[in-house]
Amino acid sequence: MSSIEILRQKFESKSIVKVGGAFDAMSAKLVEMHGFDAIWAGSFAISATHALPDASIMTMTEFLHVTTSMVDACKIPVIADCDTGFGGPSNVSHMVKKYEAAGVAAISIEDKVFPKQNSLLDGGKQELISEKEFVAKIIAAKEAKRNSNFMIIARTEALIAQSGMDEAIQRARAYEKAGADALLIHSKKNTPDEVFEFADTWDGNLPVVIVPTSYPSIKLSDLQKHKIKMIIYANQTLRASYASMNRVLEQIRNSDSLDSIKEKISDMEEIFKLQKMYELKNEEEMIKANLKKMGYI
Amino acid sequence: MSSIEILRQKFESKSIVKVGGAFDAMSAKLVEMHGFDAIWAGSFAISATHALPDASIMTMTEFLHVTTSMVDACKIPVIADCDTGFGGPSNVSHMVKKYEAAGVAAISIEDKVFPKQNSLLDGGKQELISEKEFVAKIIAAKEAKRNSNFMIIARTEALIAQSGMDEAIQRARAYEKAGADALLIHSKKNTPDEVFEFADTWDGNLPVVIVPTSYPSIKLSDLQKHKIKMIIYANQTLRASYASMNRVLEQIRNSDSLDSIKEKISDMEEIFKLQKMYELKNEEEMIKANLKKMGYI
Amino acid sequence: MSSIEILRQKFESKSIVKVGGAFDAMSAKLVEMHGFDAIWAGSFAISATHALPDASIMTMTEFLHVTTSMVDACKIPVIADCDTGFGGPSNVSHMVKKYEAAGVAAISIEDKVFPKQNSLLDGGKQELISEKEFVAKIIAAKEAKRNSNFMIIARTEALIAQSGMDEAIQRARAYEKAGADALLIHSKKNTPDEVFEFADTWDGNLPVVIVPTSYPSIKLSDLQKHKIKMIIYANQTLRASYASMNRVLEQIRNSDSLDSIKEKISDMEEIFKLQKMYELKNEEEMIKANLKKMGYI
Amino acid sequence: MSSIEILRQKFESKSIVKVGGAFDAMSAKLVEMHGFDAIWAGSFAISATHALPDASIMTMTEFLHVTTSMVDACKIPVIADCDTGFGGPSNVSHMVKKYEAAGVAAISIEDKVFPKQNSLLDGGKQELISEKEFVAKIIAAKEAKRNSNFMIIARTEALIAQSGMDEAIQRARAYEKAGADALLIHSKKNTPDEVFEFADTWDGNLPVVIVPTSYPSIKLSDLQKHKIKMIIYANQTLRASYASMNRVLEQIRNSDSLDSIKEKISDMEEIFKLQKMYELKNEEEMIKANLKKMGYI
Repeated sequence: MSSIEILRQKFESKSIVKVGGAFDAMSAKLVEMHGFDAIWAGSFAISATHALPDASIMTMTEFLHVTTSMVDACKIPVIADCDTGFGGPSNVSHMVKKYEAAGVAAISIEDKVFPKQNSLLDGGKQELISEKEFVAKIIAAKEAKRNSNFMIIARTEALIAQSGMDEAIQRARAYEKAGADALLIHSKKNTPDEVFEFADTWDGNLPVVIVPTSYPSIKLSDLQKHKIKMIIYANQTLRASYASMNRVLEQIRNSDSLDSIKEKISDMEEIFKLQKMYELKNEEEMIKANLKKMGYI
Repeated sequence: MSSIEILRQKFESKSIVKVGGAFDAMSAKLVEMHGFDAIWAGSFAISATHALPDASIMTMTEFLHVTTSMVDACKIPVIADCDTGFGGPSNVSHMVKKYEAAGVAAISIEDKVFPKQNSLLDGGKQELISEKEFVAKIIAAKEAKRNSNFMIIARTEALIAQSGMDEAIQRARAYEKAGADALLIHSKKNTPDEVFEFADTWDGNLPVVIVPTSYPSIKLSDLQKHKIKMIIYANQTLRASYASMNRVLEQIRNSDSLDSIKEKISDMEEIFKLQKMYELKNEEEMIKANLKKMGYI
Repeated sequence: MSSIEILRQKFESKSIVKVGGAFDAMSAKLVEMHGFDAIWAGSFAISATHALPDASIMTMTEFLHVTTSMVDACKIPVIADCDTGFGGPSNVSHMVKKYEAAGVAAISIEDKVFPKQNSLLDGGKQELISEKEFVAKIIAAKEAKRNSNFMIIARTEALIAQSGMDEAIQRARAYEKAGADALLIHSKKNTPDEVFEFADTWDGNLPVVIVPTSYPSIKLSDLQKHKIKMIIYANQTLRASYASMNRVLEQIRNSDSLDSIKEKISDMEEIFKLQKMYELKNEEEMIKANLKKMGYI
Repeated sequence: MSSIEILRQKFESKSIVKVGGAFDAMSAKLVEMHGFDAIWAGSFAISATHALPDASIMTMTEFLHVTTSMVDACKIPVIADCDTGFGGPSNVSHMVKKYEAAGVAAISIEDKVFPKQNSLLDGGKQELISEKEFVAKIIAAKEAKRNSNFMIIARTEALIAQSGMDEAIQRARAYEKAGADALLIHSKKNTPDEVFEFADTWDGNLPVVIVPTSYPSIKLSDLQKHKIKMIIYANQTLRASYASMNRVLEQIRNSDSLDSIKEKISDMEEIFKLQKMYELKNEEEMIKANLKKMGYI
């Protein structure tokens, strides 16, 4: 079963699909090791690890490069955050072909102007493209995919752009009609009320997806009654990573010896395991056994 | 002053040159922000974040890609861990040209067989190439560099390969004669005694570099009397990152809400700053001011 | 002298600067071997060799990858055709930093909407962005460059978009004021009259650049009197390559033996020379000589 | 049917499988347009277009990048020339996974020392690795492939290295036993006698593959009686391309006008077609039609 089918199946069999954010193959692998259903290859986190603004500065090639490395390392599905789709409908079409060929299970595109800015940036520009323009992108994406189970997640930034709940709902309906497979509703409110209101009002069939970065108080146990199907913990791994490196570097700078550092760091073995150093040794053993059987050693 | 000159100058002006390990532009930037003298683009850490074995599996292209992203993000020098040089002398020659052109300040190559295995892997193969073969690589590197201050760090794995102290010293002499600019002596002992013995015995002019992964008890305050010039904290950022992501993912899996998570994670603002989101806004302001001056707005 | 300075000097010392189009390092090297002043890394030709539409489908990363390979192979300056600049002003700023760091001597950006379509495509969309928007891109480019001699070629598509000669001249004036270093006037007429009219009317100081794809009858000997400074033969190498491969493949398909093929093909030696196979052998000799001197052989 | 199955089927259904050499997506597409059975992504030709020696200088990443672009553009199978496999058995294993995932139908690896030199280079080093070492690589390749129809072509350079016909035959037997799917016998003789002798002597089941670069007099009509199954025209497209660009650049340099150039070059339309510019227009029409149906226009 391909990762595309696995993701569809999870949507059908689970009440809540839990997705962990990653920015490289190691963080993706950690998400997998902790039992999440899928990996979110987030553009904010990936831009951050490249020390580049989350503002359509990195190219599709660069995002796909990182995402492919996650796909290669993991068995669970990878969902790619593709921002605005890297241009117009023809770019979206090209993108879907490339991402599906790379083994990605789903892509998410959002209805903001290209180049975009991060949705949570204080004072950032949050301009939407017209409903028609975004519908054109969804049509392009839908026509480009080969496996009908490949998911196109339409993300509306109507609430982020302060266009109101009605606009958000209307766009959601249009995106469903155009062929989207799921709806991501983004909000920068610091409580879940806004996304709950959206989900409670939503009258279509598409499953609702949320990213609770700005409203961490939301409870898993409340999602089902609001008909929210998927939750994406988009950037907690990145922020944990940043904070711990900050601490350990500070401690190294202030210590005479690594032994006196307080930050808990993993041992080398754990990482050797994650990066399949021992599988490589097993592979060598297998080859040796074969060479023996063939009389070479 | 280019980063090549900056690194040379630090070698001349400082008693101890402190280098922090990084695996992407964000970790590199954190190393810079904490006042280290240079960044170590380590092949173990970079392989780990790609979930690939540290065994010459990743290509020069992939390492250079990551390293270039560090160079673009940082002002302090980047030192590239180039393993065995990705093949023979002609590969080393090509590599030096590419790395120097990318703005890297120094490269390190080691005298192990290609493909290599991590020096600290339990039961890993640690075979050396002959002194002559490695001297050939140093000659190739030296001829390939354009700026004479670009540093070639020759790393001997003689102690790792259990070839003895005499062999290590003899190789060090040969590598100096061949044109290396510094010597990295690697050890997997769990005390610093072995590297101290090497440094105390070393009678050449090349500065000595160490990577205290297996002997974290070594004290900064002891380095100078042993004539050790550079210390590389190669993988503590990686291991802090791994450990904290492990904790935060565990906590997310076991909590009903992100609010109840104990792991300290950075806020979004810190990361926005690191990735220059505000510089981008300033740039927009500058353009707006110019457009105003020109009468467009 | 860097390739940036070389290009500036050619602008100052030569009456006509002749530029040959290339799409990979081999074609670039051939342009150099034939004595052209510079290489045009054209987006149409590069897209064509990737079998992708010339419509902003390929990313900056992909174009830069090809362009860097030309820079690495050649000593004469490389001028990069950067289409619309891959997005808005912030993308242009990022792009200029990356291209200048890669050793490119000049970039060209054009005033069409992103994503763009090839200017000569029959029935293609040719929509301009506003003068103000393009001026913003030029300002971004100018601020981003480090070496003041790095050239920003502003290409107006006003004639292609059928906006008229007045609009073309007005935009040219605005682009000069904004900080462009040269003007590329594009035309799809099948005689040079239109570009001559533009050049004769042009009253600014910026040198005029042309690309005579659609008006091949233009004479080199006529350029100077029309104050045209640079001529770019953008795609003749590509079209020669396509045509000859077409012929040779046809002949192979219809022959019992390669010996009966009429298309003249180069011998292996010529290509070995171009790809520096003999320099590699010389390098090996040099290393051998050094090893001998050091007593290893 | 995947390209892997298509290639296997051609091996079973056709008397001679004809393969055209390519070095980028355009040349690959031309090979396809002329009815060849498959595309050879040759390392000599790809290195040449990068102006780099055919001597293991380019990395797997770079070759795979070019090869993937061929796969994306074409429907016929792509066979990747993977030289010595980019290192030892673990590199071969990694390589096979990456190439198969990219949609390549077959890979070829050869029994020379890494880094290798081109087999036809006058005075080039042609050293073989031991039979055992190459058998280890074939085992690694076989274990790494997922689709059993994915083909591993074992190329012996025994004749190139002047190790004699007996050695060539013995290695062929060993490679078959190790799990190879086809045998490529390379020869630098200027008549086909040597490869005919090999093929006539060969007593195993693996199909024989040849690359008649140095013996162009070989006749297609003679292949079947010598039990040769596949013929690869590895570099004629490259050499035609080189020669025609050489001519056209020479003519441009010596002419006052492009109109007086004699070299026949393709028109823009042919290339627009190859790069799917009109498919992109059709896509736009399709989107427009959908938007109309949905009431947006």
